[in-house]
Amino acid sequence: MQNFTFYNPTKILFGKGQIASITQEIPLNQRVLITYGGGSIKQNGVYAEVMAALAGYTVFEFAGIEPNPTYETLMEAVRVVKEQRIDFLLAVGGGSVIDGTKFIAVAALFEGEPWDILAQHAPIVRALPFGTVLTLPATGSEMNSFAVVTRRASQDKLAFGHPLVFPRFSVLDPSTTLTLPPRQIGNGVVDAFTHIMEQYLTYPVNAPVQDRFAEGLLLTLIEEGPKALATPDNYEVRANVMWCATLALNGLIGAGVPSDWATHMIGHEITARYGLDHAQTLAIVLPNTMAVQRNQKRAKLLQYAARVWNLTSGGEDERIDAAIAKTREFFEYMGVKTYLRGYGIGPEAVAVVLQQLERHGLTALGEHQDVTLVTSRTILERCVAA
Amino acid sequence: MQNFTFYNPTKILFGKGQIASITQEIPLNQRVLITYGGGSIKQNGVYAEVMAALAGYTVFEFAGIEPNPTYETLMEAVRVVKEQRIDFLLAVGGGSVIDGTKFIAVAALFEGEPWDILAQHAPIVRALPFGTVLTLPATGSEMNSFAVVTRRASQDKLAFGHPLVFPRFSVLDPSTTLTLPPRQIGNGVVDAFTHIMEQYLTYPVNAPVQDRFAEGLLLTLIEEGPKALATPDNYEVRANVMWCATLALNGLIGAGVPSDWATHMIGHEITARYGLDHAQTLAIVLPNTMAVQRNQKRAKLLQYAARVWNLTSGGEDERIDAAIAKTREFFEYMGVKTYLRGYGIGPEAVAVVLQQLERHGLTALGEHQDVTLVTSRTILERCVAA
Repeated sequence: MQNFTFYNPTKILFGKGQIASITQEIPLNQRVLITYGGGSIKQNGVYAEVMAALAGYTVFEFAGIEPNPTYETLMEAVRVVKEQRIDFLLAVGGGSVIDGTKFIAVAALFEGEPWDILAQHAPIVRALPFGTVLTLPATGSEMNSFAVVTRRASQDKLAFGHPLVFPRFSVLDPSTTLTLPPRQIGNGVVDAFTHIMEQYLTYPVNAPVQDRFAEGLLLTLIEEGPKALATPDNYEVRANVMWCATLALNGLIGAGVPSDWATHMIGHEITARYGLDHAQTLAIVLPNTMAVQRNQKRAKLLQYAARVWNLTSGGEDERIDAAIAKTREFFEYMGVKTYLRGYGIGPEAVAVVLQQLERHGLTALGEHQDVTLVTSRTILERCVAA
Repeated sequence: MQNFTFYNPTKILFGKGQIASITQEIPLNQRVLITYGGGSIKQNGVYAEVMAALAGYTVFEFAGIEPNPTYETLMEAVRVVKEQRIDFLLAVGGGSVIDGTKFIAVAALFEGEPWDILAQHAPIVRALPFGTVLTLPATGSEMNSFAVVTRRASQDKLAFGHPLVFPRFSVLDPSTTLTLPPRQIGNGVVDAFTHIMEQYLTYPVNAPVQDRFAEGLLLTLIEEGPKALATPDNYEVRANVMWCATLALNGLIGAGVPSDWATHMIGHEITARYGLDHAQTLAIVLPNTMAVQRNQKRAKLLQYAARVWNLTSGGEDERIDAAIAKTREFFEYMGVKTYLRGYGIGPEAVAVVLQQLERHGLTALGEHQDVTLVTSRTILERCVAA
């Protein structure tokens, strides 16, 4: 096991009815800004539940945080925070709303041009406190200190992280997810699955606990994901998916082991340029990263094949190919297509995405920093065809 | 899955050389009291390493916190804290030192008789901040907010917990454990194993993640525990045991599931009366709790038999008996005897321990509160004979 620091102070309030508990977590007399997205929370009752809980506070709203939240939109929210002297932010939504709120929390107290937080890794020294009410299990943002923001003008999609942007609390009420459309369930499961794989599928470092935790989450998503589509009113299934997605990226399974974020990095560039859903890009890239990097990942690919898919007979490459095929089938079963062609994108994307990777300096990805532009090209070429 | 709150703000600094990092975690210019036990940290170099790290602080020491730390000893430390106007405590040792330090942290700022914290659940409103340097993987105290303290005069062994007694940080350097005697390794593995079982072996609530995490920890202890005895200089094995023990009782695997602390409660009374090591009492009580409560725990016992011990053939009770036998064998293999007789204690203990349970109101233990004194008697009677 490698040396590590693990720190995660986010309080999780899990289960039916927990939205009412937020009053115990937000100091009295605070001016609270609720941030949300396109308004689905008004249809499914979550907005009303949150407003009822906050009856004793001075509440403001900022709606319209889009999927892949943009700097341009978030800076409008920063203006509201300053104008209304907001004390506390409450993100109500999925990963995009939460990521966006993390940026708002930092940008509102930042001296200088907030884009530098993303583009120049400008030091963060303060952030507004915030909580979240999660309505879409997927990104894990509700229990980590990272966020991804897109600049509309330049199509740059960049990440930042800081301990000050751990949510103070996150409400995970699975019943808020019962009204999600199948596409968002599928996307969420694929996103969580890929997060786990990126911390698991590298090379062995004698970390059996981390391996087994990762495998436990993968097996649970494989079991529960299809049930979430087949029985959309099943609270318990949604509860299991929700807890998996949070634990997939809260730092725990990645503590003490190498990680490989190549799939996410390449995927981000596809979204920035072509507007695909984040999870769609992961479903396209991950199986091909597995195939192209099979030698570097051989030992873990075989472990994955055996422990997650019960593939124990046949030659090594046969088992690896079967495990990759199973992964792809699972994504497709969750309703997420696994080739660019499926989204109407042709081979011209290869050069476009490579150019974006180069522009962002993403020329040495992966656990060995050996996913150069040459390797990314090979991966991307395999992403095109069906 | 049941509703739950999960909150754990302890920062873990894991790995070789991490003791040096504590200076980044303790505010400058603080008056630090180092608390420790019998002095083994002076032989194995940990004391020197801690003192070197704290060169820039005003440092005081309190030695002599015993296994099953006593109120009487801890109140001496409280006197030192007050006299020397200590700002920060640093526990260096195992679970007893850490538990004791939690009590010191609270008692030093408590108005009234500190014993009431344990005996009367007196409200806690303040605590000194503290960190830990763990040298003995076992209790999980380094990453939770609970402690057990014994009153020497009355032989009462009582617990308390409060979010204010989460350690600010805990250093987990597995190399500090390389000099541990086999008895402490065996005890630590049994303690951690039992913690996991007490959160796992109840009844199913459709919580597959929690189940798989628990099973992952159990399997790892079963693999790595014997290696820790056989190859005592193996850092990686100690690292895996250490991380298992911490995760066994940091709140994660118990979130959203029922738990059954009957084994610990009965074990505490045996230690209080007969002075057995904490883990020895668990090794004695757990297999018998499993056997006596087999009907209430049937579904999970069968799952445990299958997933942890690969026992899948034969009738239900046959598999359950085999799983209990395997558990007992594992404890014995770790050098911890599993009957009272092995420690020279005879059947007279049954009435003595029952009396203690009754005196402490522990008359409805277990996940169903059905471990009455009658059931405890049955368990204890099975604990005597070999």
